[in-house]
Amino acid sequence: MRIRFYNCRILSMKDSMEIKKGEVWTDGRQIAYVGEKKPSGQAFDREVDVQGNLIMPGFKNAHTHSSMTFLRSFADDLPLQEWLHNKVFPLEAKLTGEDMRQLAKVAILEYLTSGITCNFDMYLDPWAVAQASVECGFRTVLAGAMNDFSQSPRELEEWYQKLNAYDPLIRFCLGFHAEYTTGLSRLEAVAALAGKYKAPVYCHNSETKTEVAQCVERYGKTPTAFLDGLGMFRYGGGGYHCVHFSREDMEIFRERGLYAVTNPGSNAKLASGIAPIAQMLAMGIPIAIGTDGPASNNCLDMFREMFLTTSLAKLREEDASAVDALEVLRMAVCNGAHAMGLSECDCLSEGKLADLIIIDLQQPNMQPLNHIPKNLVYSGSKQNVKLTMVDGKILYEDGKFFVGEEPKEIYARANEIARRIQG
Amino acid sequence: MRIRFYNCRILSMKDSMEIKKGEVWTDGRQIAYVGEKKPSGQAFDREVDVQGNLIMPGFKNAHTHSSMTFLRSFADDLPLQEWLHNKVFPLEAKLTGEDMRQLAKVAILEYLTSGITCNFDMYLDPWAVAQASVECGFRTVLAGAMNDFSQSPRELEEWYQKLNAYDPLIRFCLGFHAEYTTGLSRLEAVAALAGKYKAPVYCHNSETKTEVAQCVERYGKTPTAFLDGLGMFRYGGGGYHCVHFSREDMEIFRERGLYAVTNPGSNAKLASGIAPIAQMLAMGIPIAIGTDGPASNNCLDMFREMFLTTSLAKLREEDASAVDALEVLRMAVCNGAHAMGLSECDCLSEGKLADLIIIDLQQPNMQPLNHIPKNLVYSGSKQNVKLTMVDGKILYEDGKFFVGEEPKEIYARANEIARRIQG
Repeated sequence: MRIRFYNCRILSMKDSMEIKKGEVWTDGRQIAYVGEKKPSGQAFDREVDVQGNLIMPGFKNAHTHSSMTFLRSFADDLPLQEWLHNKVFPLEAKLTGEDMRQLAKVAILEYLTSGITCNFDMYLDPWAVAQASVECGFRTVLAGAMNDFSQSPRELEEWYQKLNAYDPLIRFCLGFHAEYTTGLSRLEAVAALAGKYKAPVYCHNSETKTEVAQCVERYGKTPTAFLDGLGMFRYGGGGYHCVHFSREDMEIFRERGLYAVTNPGSNAKLASGIAPIAQMLAMGIPIAIGTDGPASNNCLDMFREMFLTTSLAKLREEDASAVDALEVLRMAVCNGAHAMGLSECDCLSEGKLADLIIIDLQQPNMQPLNHIPKNLVYSGSKQNVKLTMVDGKILYEDGKFFVGEEPKEIYARANEIARRIQG
Repeated sequence: MRIRFYNCRILSMKDSMEIKKGEVWTDGRQIAYVGEKKPSGQAFDREVDVQGNLIMPGFKNAHTHSSMTFLRSFADDLPLQEWLHNKVFPLEAKLTGEDMRQLAKVAILEYLTSGITCNFDMYLDPWAVAQASVECGFRTVLAGAMNDFSQSPRELEEWYQKLNAYDPLIRFCLGFHAEYTTGLSRLEAVAALAGKYKAPVYCHNSETKTEVAQCVERYGKTPTAFLDGLGMFRYGGGGYHCVHFSREDMEIFRERGLYAVTNPGSNAKLASGIAPIAQMLAMGIPIAIGTDGPASNNCLDMFREMFLTTSLAKLREEDASAVDALEVLRMAVCNGAHAMGLSECDCLSEGKLADLIIIDLQQPNMQPLNHIPKNLVYSGSKQNVKLTMVDGKILYEDGKFFVGEEPKEIYARANEIARRIQG
C-alpha cells in the first residue's frame, strides 16, 4: 500500500518540535516522504485529506502487561503487595496461553484508541502476547518476566532466539519480573545471558519503599546497585517504575545509559509514590513512559500518563516549571522507541517505519491553537485520535478498528474468560 | 420533545450505585420515567436504542472559568502567583464581554464531550458567560468573582436579582474571587448580602500555602476562619480548591455544611499541593469536583479529574484504599449538583431535569465489564461519551454538536480573539 496524507500539520519530532505544513507518504511498511512537495505522477493506493490536523509519530507504551485486562476494575483500592499476592497471582495461575492471547487483544484495541503504536510488554506467556499482536497487526517488544515461579533462564534464551526471528512486528528482550521475586541463581543466569548475547536487560525496579528496604536487608544494596553488581546491565536495558531511587541508583542509570520507564498512573493508584523525574531528567537519564497493566492503572492511555508525568513531578518538586510538556512528549514518543530498541520508529522521516497517528485538532480541547505540542500533553485525550497506523497499515480510523476481527467478538471472549477466572 | 431511551443499562444514582436494565423517558425539560416498563401507546418524538450502553446523570463541573480558553497552553509551567499576576491579569484586562461570551463557547463544547451537563462558573462578566450558555442550551450556575479590581457589592446584588430571573438554564450565587484579592470592606459587604438574601457564598479558598500564610499574617486567622468570622457562611456556600486546610478549617466546613470543591488537575499542574480529600470525606464534608479553568488545567475533562481525585488522595495518604471510586463518582455527579444548588439535576428520577449522558461501554477501556462504576472513574475517557443531553435537549451525539452553530465558527472566533489579546 502506498498512502498519501496531505493537508497535514506535521510534528515529525525528527530534529525539533517545530510543526510544519506538508505531506507524509508511506510505501509498504515505511515512510517514503515527509515534506512540502506535491506528488508528480506517483500512484497512491489511497490519498487522505488530513484537513489541517496533526500527523505525528505514534506513542510508545514502554511498560505494560496487556493480558491483564481480565482484572480491570476487579481488585482496586489495595496496596501493591496485597494486590499482587492475594489477588493477581492466584488468578493468574488459572490463565491459559489462549486466554492471554485473547485478553491482550482488548489492550491492543485500547492502545490504538490512544495513538499508541507499540507496547513494551512483560507477561507469563510471551508467545501468546506476540501472537495477539501479529494477528492484529500491532507492534510489540516483549521482555522476559522470569521469576522463581515462572519462566526459566533456558526459556529466556530460547525466546530470545525464536521470538526475535518470528515476525517483523515482534522483538524479544532479556528480562525478569523483579529482584524481590527472583532468587540469586536465576538472576546470575540472566546476567550471563546478557553477557553472552551482549543484550540489554529489563525488570521492575524500586516500585515501592518495601521492595527497596527488603533488598537492602537481603543484599546490603538497593535493587539497582545489587543488580548492576551482578553485571546485569553491562549492555544496557532499563527499569520499570524507578520510584524510590537513591542518588547512587540514578548515577548507575546515567552511567549505563539505562532507561527509566515511569508509570505515574499505576504508581499513584497503588499509592507507591512519585518517581524523581525532574532529578533524572537533570542528570540526563533517558526517561520513557508506560501505562503499566490494566489491573493497576486501570486504563491504557498515553494522554493521561503524559499529564501525570509532568503534573506529579510538579507536585513532587513543588515547582510548576518542573518537567515541561515538550520533554514529556519526547519521553512518550522518541525515548519510548529507544527504550525498546526501536530507533526505526522514533520520528517521522524517510526510511523510518510507518508507525504514525493523526490528531484531531478540530476538537474543543485543542482550541484555540495556541501551542499544539503543549495541548497534546496538557489537554489531549483519546478522543483526539483520528487514525492510528502501525507498520504502514491503518488499524484504527474515525472510531473503527481494522484488526482482522470485530471488537465485539474480542470483548465477548474477554468477558467469558474474566468470568471463568474470577468465578 | 418526548424521547425514549431503551435497551439501557441505567445508573440512576438515586438511592444506590446499582445498575439496572430498562428505559429512560424524557418529556420536555424533565425525566418522565425511569424503570423497566415498555411504552403502551405513548407517542415519542424520538426513540433511541441505547444498545446496552450506560445512561446516567451528567457530570457537574463544580468550579471553572470557561472564558479562559484563550489562555490554554499559553502560559504554562509557572507558579500560581506569577502566573496570575504576570500573565493572566494583564491579558484579562484586554477582554471585552463579547470576547468572554465567544470564548466560553469553546469550553461548553468541551464540557459536552466530557459528559458535563452543568458548570459552576466564576468570571469577570457573568452576563457574557450566561449568554453563551443560553445560546448553546447549556446549564450554568455563576458565582460572583468580585475582588478589589473588578465587580462591586452593588453589582453582585443586581446580578443576584436579575440573573436569577434571566433564564431557566441560569442561576447566580453570591461570590468573590478570594480573600487575598479582596479587602475587608468589600468582604463585609458580601457577608451583609448573604444575610440579607439568606444566600450561600462561594470563593477560592486556601489554594496555596502562600495564600494561607498571608491571610494569617494579615488577620491572624486562616482564610476559612477569617471569612467565617465575618458571617460569610451563615447560609452555607463553599470553597474552591481547599488544598491547605487545617483541622479547624475542616471543622468549620463540616459545621456549616460548606462544599469543598476540589480541583486536582489545576492544583497539580500549578504545584499548589494535594487537598486532604480523605480527611474531609471522613469528617462528612461534602466534596464536589471542578476542572478549574482551561488556563491552569488545561483541559475540561471530568474523567481526568475523577482519576486525579482518587489517585492523588491515595498518594497523599500513602494508602491505595483511600477515597474509593464510588465516592468519587458521587462527588462528580450528586455532590456537584448540590454544591450548585441544583438538587433537581442530581440523579435520574421522574420529575428531575433531563440532564443525562450515555456512556459507550463498547470501547476497549470499558472491557471486560467487571465493574462499570469503577471503570468510569479509573479508566473512563471523553471517548466514551456518546450523548450529552441538557435540559431535555441533545446537545452532543456521536461526536456531533447541536448548539446552534458549527464548532468551526466558534473556534475561528476564539483563535481570532486569542491572537488579538496575546498580540
